[in-house]
Amino acid sequence: MVSKQLNSINFFDPVQDLIPLVEERMRQATCDHNPELGLAIDHLLSSGGKRVRPTVALLTGRMLEGDEYHLVTLAAAIEMLHTATLVHDDLIDGALLRRGISTLNARWSPAATVLTGDFMFARAAKLAAEAESVDVMQLFAETLSSIVNGEIAQMFPDDGITNRENYDQRIFAKTASMFELATGAAAMLSPVNEIAIERIRRYGHAIGMAFQIVDDVLDFTGEQATVGKPVASDLRQGLVTLPALYYLEAYPDDPDMAHIRSGTHYEETIMDRLVASIRESGAIQKAMDDAQRYIDQSLEILDEMPDNLERHALEDLANYITDRRL
Amino acid sequence: MVSKQLNSINFFDPVQDLIPLVEERMRQATCDHNPELGLAIDHLLSSGGKRVRPTVALLTGRMLEGDEYHLVTLAAAIEMLHTATLVHDDLIDGALLRRGISTLNARWSPAATVLTGDFMFARAAKLAAEAESVDVMQLFAETLSSIVNGEIAQMFPDDGITNRENYDQRIFAKTASMFELATGAAAMLSPVNEIAIERIRRYGHAIGMAFQIVDDVLDFTGEQATVGKPVASDLRQGLVTLPALYYLEAYPDDPDMAHIRSGTHYEETIMDRLVASIRESGAIQKAMDDAQRYIDQSLEILDEMPDNLERHALEDLANYITDRRL
Repeated sequence: MVSKQLNSINFFDPVQDLIPLVEERMRQATCDHNPELGLAIDHLLSSGGKRVRPTVALLTGRMLEGDEYHLVTLAAAIEMLHTATLVHDDLIDGALLRRGISTLNARWSPAATVLTGDFMFARAAKLAAEAESVDVMQLFAETLSSIVNGEIAQMFPDDGITNRENYDQRIFAKTASMFELATGAAAMLSPVNEIAIERIRRYGHAIGMAFQIVDDVLDFTGEQATVGKPVASDLRQGLVTLPALYYLEAYPDDPDMAHIRSGTHYEETIMDRLVASIRESGAIQKAMDDAQRYIDQSLEILDEMPDNLERHALEDLANYITDRRL
Repeated sequence: MVSKQLNSINFFDPVQDLIPLVEERMRQATCDHNPELGLAIDHLLSSGGKRVRPTVALLTGRMLEGDEYHLVTLAAAIEMLHTATLVHDDLIDGALLRRGISTLNARWSPAATVLTGDFMFARAAKLAAEAESVDVMQLFAETLSSIVNGEIAQMFPDDGITNRENYDQRIFAKTASMFELATGAAAMLSPVNEIAIERIRRYGHAIGMAFQIVDDVLDFTGEQATVGKPVASDLRQGLVTLPALYYLEAYPDDPDMAHIRSGTHYEETIMDRLVASIRESGAIQKAMDDAQRYIDQSLEILDEMPDNLERHALEDLANYITDRRL
């Protein structure tokens, strides 16, 4: 559903010619793998979703007249890094969701999953190094560190995580850091100065933050059939996102929220009632307002960029983030 | 035991002053971690063994008058990468060794282990990027790829693995690639030309190959009390190393070997008899002869290097590899 909507939006158009080159570069980078892993990797790469992150990198680079060969390599590195993090995420989520179910074929799979992820991390690093820029490499390594730190923080949640600062850190690590890499590194491969690099990084950061906030809102407002997972799946897994944070701020003494936060076991009816309360409260709108502020920031930054097709596509992309509804 | 012997050898001396700086750089690179992982990482870094890999990098760099600040950063990156691979190795080995034992506290530990390893990979990449050399970064990423490929190949063993070509690939991935990185990257940070870089990489490759062959020999010849694991632990886990390969070459029809190779279950008495046969055969000496050839190669390469304290230390180190006996 998202995918169809997204593909009909024209912000992919100005770099549509480069996406097959990015996919080719990704395949080349992984073709010498062990045959046993071949199917898994082919599946991971070909099911690769919307290619939003490489598109953002390519749009930024073309907007700033960057070197296209290196931009394609960078875009491949970014998509590979994104895929690698998903692989290890699945293992980590699986380790939680599968608990108690000992019948799963778990003897090989954690090891194979770790190594498949490691393999893709290694290849992502190799691609990033092939962009031949020390600055790109440093930003790439910093981004990888941010992502892993975020996963670690999410694995060891504590009461501290239910505040805005921790939420912001978490969505930066999970989503915005990668968009900042996509825009910043593309600018580093383009003939622009430090100030322009810094600005377009802030654009990437802003759309990334907005993107994750909207995702977290959709987790509450979407219908199960559309989203493909239960409404409020984050909260059901103990993860407090922005709508729940705003609700908690407005109703600090809500007994349902206290019940849910008191432990890992909760009554289903209380959870359903709490989710309904959050959906009906002003928390959803407050979260969307925050997302819109990030989008407004991102559009202001683009105002100072070269006025060309790619800039307009980046504007469309920014606007799409808060416009999408499921 | 190894550690004591190694520390009494003087090849550490010419760079002994830099090792504390390397350890400090490693600590700095990981100090912003999640507190939950703090103990694990401190333990991993402080128990860090002999620091052979950073020592090789530092000796090479000083021999070639490389930039010391960047050399220390590189050495920290290499030791961090080595530690990260051990962390994921432990998970992979654990996944095999712990099978069937469901009482182990396995709910968090695979995920935590994956992320601890990922964290250290990320920090290793960050340190490598801080050496500010595209060439170093590319070699670093290639080495990471080799190591992961080797682990994957080892996880999916097939009959093909019991030949010399596969053995060579495996020990390159496991050990020699990291020594090649240590010497090659150190040379890249030094005022020397491509030819010198290529030569010293071959030195690193040669001592790494010898190092692993000798390790594999010691797995057969060492006593359990000294080595801390059962004699022929590799073969007991289904891993055919060079002594077993030479034995198989000399006695292709040995029924004990056929029994061991026929499946994962074997009779202990047959395994013990086979190990005794291998120990008594000429296979051990043939493997040691191969290791010595690598060492001779490495010494030839050093002959063409600047005649200084560090070069002599690298010679001592090479000679030590085949001289060590447990």
